[in-house]
Amino acid sequence: MKKLINDPADVVSESLLGLEAAHPDHVRVDHPNRIVLRREPPRPGKVGLVSGGGSGHEPMHGGFVGLGMLDAACAGEVFTSPVPDQMMAATKAVDAGAGVLHIVKNYTGDVMNFEMAAELAAAETGTEVVSIVTNDDVAVQDSLYTAGRRGVGVTVLLEKIVGAAAEEGRSLTEVADLARRVNDNGRSMGMALTSCTVPAAGKPTFELAETEMELGVGIHGEPGRQRLPLASAKEVAAMLVDPVLTDLPFGVGDSVIAFVNGMGGTPLIELYLMYNEIHQLLDRAGVSVARSLVGNYITSLEMAGCSITLLKLDDELVRLWDAPVNTPGLRWGV
Amino acid sequence: MKKLINDPADVVSESLLGLEAAHPDHVRVDHPNRIVLRREPPRPGKVGLVSGGGSGHEPMHGGFVGLGMLDAACAGEVFTSPVPDQMMAATKAVDAGAGVLHIVKNYTGDVMNFEMAAELAAAETGTEVVSIVTNDDVAVQDSLYTAGRRGVGVTVLLEKIVGAAAEEGRSLTEVADLARRVNDNGRSMGMALTSCTVPAAGKPTFELAETEMELGVGIHGEPGRQRLPLASAKEVAAMLVDPVLTDLPFGVGDSVIAFVNGMGGTPLIELYLMYNEIHQLLDRAGVSVARSLVGNYITSLEMAGCSITLLKLDDELVRLWDAPVNTPGLRWGV
Repeated sequence: MKKLINDPADVVSESLLGLEAAHPDHVRVDHPNRIVLRREPPRPGKVGLVSGGGSGHEPMHGGFVGLGMLDAACAGEVFTSPVPDQMMAATKAVDAGAGVLHIVKNYTGDVMNFEMAAELAAAETGTEVVSIVTNDDVAVQDSLYTAGRRGVGVTVLLEKIVGAAAEEGRSLTEVADLARRVNDNGRSMGMALTSCTVPAAGKPTFELAETEMELGVGIHGEPGRQRLPLASAKEVAAMLVDPVLTDLPFGVGDSVIAFVNGMGGTPLIELYLMYNEIHQLLDRAGVSVARSLVGNYITSLEMAGCSITLLKLDDELVRLWDAPVNTPGLRWGV
Repeated sequence: MKKLINDPADVVSESLLGLEAAHPDHVRVDHPNRIVLRREPPRPGKVGLVSGGGSGHEPMHGGFVGLGMLDAACAGEVFTSPVPDQMMAATKAVDAGAGVLHIVKNYTGDVMNFEMAAELAAAETGTEVVSIVTNDDVAVQDSLYTAGRRGVGVTVLLEKIVGAAAEEGRSLTEVADLARRVNDNGRSMGMALTSCTVPAAGKPTFELAETEMELGVGIHGEPGRQRLPLASAKEVAAMLVDPVLTDLPFGVGDSVIAFVNGMGGTPLIELYLMYNEIHQLLDRAGVSVARSLVGNYITSLEMAGCSITLLKLDDELVRLWDAPVNTPGLRWGV
């Protein structure tokens, strides 16, 4: 295992120390609870946005805390759900009287623990909590850690768009409705060229031969649809775009955010090359790209590979996407 | 070789197509010449900033074209200097009557070709060109492609800071003086856990055993100071920070930008963990971190590893660093 780490047991806590030290203007970290919080206290009357999940997907979620995005993110161990106590502490910390939205990726542990945290928060402090579960991955129905579809790239776009709406002072009901609308209009699929290695495990999560790739891989290395011979970027792009387009379905005249996400170990030169292929396929399908995002945003440690996410837009979603955001991982307009 | 590419010969041109398609608001690409340009024509009276070099270091340099940073970037083949004709075309394209600054990393091919381009531009169109050569890498004196020290991480910081100064309408002499000041006050050193594979070569540039790392590696995989047994993040941080601190030297009371750069294959969770170690070492040395940058900005394809760069600041450099920037790779304030 070749990693820039000290003790595998300290990877998450030491990385959170680094995040806080590097971004004192954006975030502070509740270290005992492993919660990334905005530096500023919550603004009275603003709906609080809490997300979280296993670590190893950085910058998601801790890197998305700040103006225009999340209020708090709970960090679990690598690829392991945070516990309800963390989520409850985060919920209480960001409750500014207007309720709290939990943004949860559809993995059994996360869903269960966020549910328990919502109940605890309601019982203990009377905080109103609504949960939105993202499940945009079209690759497989049910999976290693999921009943139903997995939540992946749409989560990033949702946190940005819903974060902007919460800044505008919308109610919890309105914010939750918007979150559901974003999830309903987004679809994703990913692929891996290599596995990744969870520090505590010390060996690759799965084996992939030098001539193979995994189509539809999950962000924890869960099996996808098929193990296939290595293909060209053009072929891989079609294998990702076609199932995504046909699933929603997206069609002629639709306008989208096209998000090409790196899994962590694939360099930007390849992600842009993939973006070129995907943009051409969308063009041919009559789908117009209104906004794009290319880079490593929801990663799987050092896995090589990429995922694509398409989100069907309307004018409101474009406006909220363009609104100012000021987080360690996404920043514009401020 | 596991990469998301089509024909190795097309990697650079197809990646440039993707960059342009993903960022139509920021850049346009002169494809025959492989020059990334700002979407807007040059502003009369503004000094033009041109950089460039081999590809494989993305987002540098093409991702740094836009308001507050470069006017043009020339892309060579992977790890290969662009040719003088490209550089001359870029120089002419951004000449708005106030002269052009060439920002050149110290590699023999780049230095020679930019020199020739400057002479050609002067002869053909009378454009006044000044060159600044970055050479901040303290690892080795002379190297595989370099006489003297290599230019690495400071180049990114310099392009940002000098870009802000050029936006203010400073003269070519002033902009060039500032560029020299930034280079003189910055030092870097890197390390690799793995090699990278140049697409056209199809095999790793160098071999590194599962238990080894390369200290002082160059951004093209050039040999560094030493091949050492794999060490902890804490030990690696000290091996990078100490030579950098003692070289300038940086000392008690100095204020710096601390830049922890990923080589392309190292995930953010590790880069933040490294940042934590480095921040602590600087604290102990009495060096205060005024600004930080953590992420993949000057990469070596999919190499795993990192580099650190420290730049000694004064109030003017801080102000220019904080000024608005709007490029595909660095964006804030707009």
